[in-house]
Amino acid sequence: MARKAKNVLFIMFDQLRWDYLSCYGHPHMDTPNIDRLASMGVRFNRAYVQSTICGSSRMCAYTGRYVHSHGVGFNNAPLKVGELTMGDHLRDVGAECWLIGKTHMSADKAGMERFGMDAEDVIGARVAECGFDVWERDDGLWAEGPSGPYDERRSPYNEYLKSKGYQGDNPWHDYANSAAGDDGKLLSGWFLENSGKPAHVHEEDSETPWLTDRAIEFADAKRDGAPWVCHVSYIKPHWPYIVPAPYNDMYGEEHIIPVKRSEAERADANPVFAGFQEKMVGRTFAREDVRREVIPAYMGLIKQCDDQMGRLFKHLEDAGAMEETMIVLTSDHGDYLGDHWLGEKELFHDQSVRVPMIIYDPSEEADATRGTVSDELVEMIDLPATFIDLQGARAPDEWLEGRSLLPLLRGERPDEWREFAVSEYDYSTSKVAKALDMHPKDARLFMIVDKRWKFMHAEGGFPPMLFDLEADPDEYEDLGRSDAHSEILDLMYDRLAKWARRCAQRTTMKDERLIAAREGGGPASRGVFIGINAEEDIPHEFSTAYRGPVRPLPERS
Amino acid sequence: MARKAKNVLFIMFDQLRWDYLSCYGHPHMDTPNIDRLASMGVRFNRAYVQSTICGSSRMCAYTGRYVHSHGVGFNNAPLKVGELTMGDHLRDVGAECWLIGKTHMSADKAGMERFGMDAEDVIGARVAECGFDVWERDDGLWAEGPSGPYDERRSPYNEYLKSKGYQGDNPWHDYANSAAGDDGKLLSGWFLENSGKPAHVHEEDSETPWLTDRAIEFADAKRDGAPWVCHVSYIKPHWPYIVPAPYNDMYGEEHIIPVKRSEAERADANPVFAGFQEKMVGRTFAREDVRREVIPAYMGLIKQCDDQMGRLFKHLEDAGAMEETMIVLTSDHGDYLGDHWLGEKELFHDQSVRVPMIIYDPSEEADATRGTVSDELVEMIDLPATFIDLQGARAPDEWLEGRSLLPLLRGERPDEWREFAVSEYDYSTSKVAKALDMHPKDARLFMIVDKRWKFMHAEGGFPPMLFDLEADPDEYEDLGRSDAHSEILDLMYDRLAKWARRCAQRTTMKDERLIAAREGGGPASRGVFIGINAEEDIPHEFSTAYRGPVRPLPERS
Repeated sequence: MARKAKNVLFIMFDQLRWDYLSCYGHPHMDTPNIDRLASMGVRFNRAYVQSTICGSSRMCAYTGRYVHSHGVGFNNAPLKVGELTMGDHLRDVGAECWLIGKTHMSADKAGMERFGMDAEDVIGARVAECGFDVWERDDGLWAEGPSGPYDERRSPYNEYLKSKGYQGDNPWHDYANSAAGDDGKLLSGWFLENSGKPAHVHEEDSETPWLTDRAIEFADAKRDGAPWVCHVSYIKPHWPYIVPAPYNDMYGEEHIIPVKRSEAERADANPVFAGFQEKMVGRTFAREDVRREVIPAYMGLIKQCDDQMGRLFKHLEDAGAMEETMIVLTSDHGDYLGDHWLGEKELFHDQSVRVPMIIYDPSEEADATRGTVSDELVEMIDLPATFIDLQGARAPDEWLEGRSLLPLLRGERPDEWREFAVSEYDYSTSKVAKALDMHPKDARLFMIVDKRWKFMHAEGGFPPMLFDLEADPDEYEDLGRSDAHSEILDLMYDRLAKWARRCAQRTTMKDERLIAAREGGGPASRGVFIGINAEEDIPHEFSTAYRGPVRPLPERS
Repeated sequence: MARKAKNVLFIMFDQLRWDYLSCYGHPHMDTPNIDRLASMGVRFNRAYVQSTICGSSRMCAYTGRYVHSHGVGFNNAPLKVGELTMGDHLRDVGAECWLIGKTHMSADKAGMERFGMDAEDVIGARVAECGFDVWERDDGLWAEGPSGPYDERRSPYNEYLKSKGYQGDNPWHDYANSAAGDDGKLLSGWFLENSGKPAHVHEEDSETPWLTDRAIEFADAKRDGAPWVCHVSYIKPHWPYIVPAPYNDMYGEEHIIPVKRSEAERADANPVFAGFQEKMVGRTFAREDVRREVIPAYMGLIKQCDDQMGRLFKHLEDAGAMEETMIVLTSDHGDYLGDHWLGEKELFHDQSVRVPMIIYDPSEEADATRGTVSDELVEMIDLPATFIDLQGARAPDEWLEGRSLLPLLRGERPDEWREFAVSEYDYSTSKVAKALDMHPKDARLFMIVDKRWKFMHAEGGFPPMLFDLEADPDEYEDLGRSDAHSEILDLMYDRLAKWARRCAQRTTMKDERLIAAREGGGPASRGVFIGINAEEDIPHEFSTAYRGPVRPLPERS
């Protein structure tokens, strides 16, 4: 290799379910480009996100910290001023950190104002943009309703479409996310019955190719100079579930994997699970006619993503950049698609909390692991530590709660890897919280998963949920109320308790400094003597002549 | 009353043990002025600090948050940029917040630099000064050793002494904290054998009267204008244990309460307890000759504090300010003074973690509680919420973990008060951590106390400690390894777990906003439809004509 790879393309898809890639075993999807990346790198088979919704999962990925540490438990909750992200840490060690696409990060405007930060200057801009330098930010949801737009930023994608001659205020909706009806009326992609129709946009102008173009521009522009991490963050296959031709028509009913749900799940549901089943999206996705429209479109969106990966990887290869670029490919969470009587994400079945995670490391040290599958428990919060490790720097242990994956990529089996992964969801703004009458401080869920068991604790006095992933890999049978499993439940509660007590906020002191402090003279080295009876009891090195001459007292005026 | 009291003198002594005041039952101390404050207000009999060392306890008091939330677990660990304190919250509701004396706060210089903050401007100065506006800051430890000064700031108290004609670089040490030996040599107050001697300073120039002068100046200057909270924060009776005449000579051996310790405590100590017993200060205070020198001096220091309280209160009364000023009198932690084979503080016996807390509320609503004793469990983190409540404002529930004490002061018995109090200590920099080979992330202790039991959990695999405060109020018998107490231990672990999982970092969102969000249309009000099959399924109020006319696709260039 020309030089040691330090650049990273950190590719994130949105709502890409772990099992909708051929390399992860989908029987009908064919994703050769992503599969090829897996053949060149390591495919992690137990990768879990730390929160099961876009914004929160991403804040974990970017900060390298749990929701319980940074506080962003749901979409559009601002990330507090003071939390640092991979961008801050990478710049500290000499690398750049760029964003192309979505972060779903809300700036803490009140905090910025309190601290006099200006989003127009570089410090404020980074605080406002989650620590990234922005190549192109587009969060990809350009909806508008009676209360105004969902996202008040400018949309580079809408600007692009307009520049290409697409008409109207919101071509994102009217073209890229709608179909053309026979009667001359738009059929909006918001409505699931329209999912199977082709989006009314030239395929090459749709969102996934557009963002890939931006990534290619970036890679070309940044061949030399400081090392960088570039977060290439796609909105798709996230809803609206609609895709341009030919992708809308590639999959049919025969390619839909059967729904995974049981009547017992409804009949005897944990109250929190029951609450989520009641949501509109769960009831809608319980309909087979809906699934028949949506799932082929979702698969088409993924197929388009794979094709764009092919384009991107070929471009890198042609440019000779493949040997100097680590490529991470993952997703921020999955999609229930009707499984377990749910739609969307939020709860912790594998459909939602487990994600694809493929890492290609071009370095020679990683040759031994190419094409292998790792069964270690990997958390999305491991990425910042991995990227810093790749720079040859030490990860800031006072901030990061994840671990570098480089040892796993390079065939080193660390002495001890984590025994369980954690995820969280804060549903305090949801109607489920209202229905369950939960205080906002209590409307929070925690998941612990190991290689055998998955456990969910809901704050507020509910029973836990528990699944035996060996005996019941599809997670049908909730053992959370089973007396026969009290030992496992106790173990899970112990793990959750120890995790919750962890030292996550001592962010102004590095561990090594604390250890070093044990060695010195402590306060004595600065003349503070605690528990010393007489001067002769001071160790010699700290003695500084405390018996000076007595000087007279001044007159008191 | 002329107006509703909104001003607060928040008086904190340092290392004033809860039982060294006559109103708290000391058989030989006579503290009539503090007792009188208690007779005018409420004396809290179960007040606990949230950390058993100066800096950490104070960061809890000022932020209204636990160590586990703000991260400052030991002295001189910087308080991270982004944490807010009572000063920030009080200014938000129109009150000023001033400091006179000690905070033991270290500014997060790295964080300030990262965020471009300048300690010379008002925003940076408040970040650097723990949210206070500084009337006079003096942390009171002006020691110097081979590694330099313990505190690198300027010392207003040293400047004062010099202005009065005291000679030398460090009259704080050479006069206020040393005695004059017969042989013309200074006898430093750092050495416990000198404790009984009179400090070589005019009594009225010693630290406690000096700080009282500053408080009186403040009160006179601030009679009108915005309401204020003024933190009057004394260094004494903290060591060096030395006091000017006549206070050095007021108490003798006959006034020392007997040491509280048992041989069993040494013979069968929990390993963490044993580790702390090994510290130099514990071994020194195990000597009766040391206690005979130190304790009368400590009592003299407290007596001086009480006399200064008399001066301060009389001044307020003469000025007519007593009716408009709430007065809080407390301490940041206690002092073992040899009890339980320990010196100093750090562990969680009452000698260390329990503090005096007296609150005088001049308002009419508080008349019914004057002179009463409250047995409710009170935490130091309750103070910020109390002061904000006094302003008639709502405490920021996204930040504060304590509760307003106003209801208790005004005779309202809240429906539910806390069932337990929590304290923490982080000993990662200590030689005890080295001896126990503890990782810095694990060298942390947690205490839970209720009205019957006190429990300590040490991270790192140690057994817990448990005391039955009813049967064993002096905390001699550690039941932490008693099988007969497994139910209580389980309860305590459950409480600790629930506490540790609490929602402490969601500081950018108020609870009321989260509850309000449950009511609205959610994303639908902004045009985001999740799980809607057809346009006619949208509630009418969100419908905004998604079936516009199809416009032609532009030519693709």
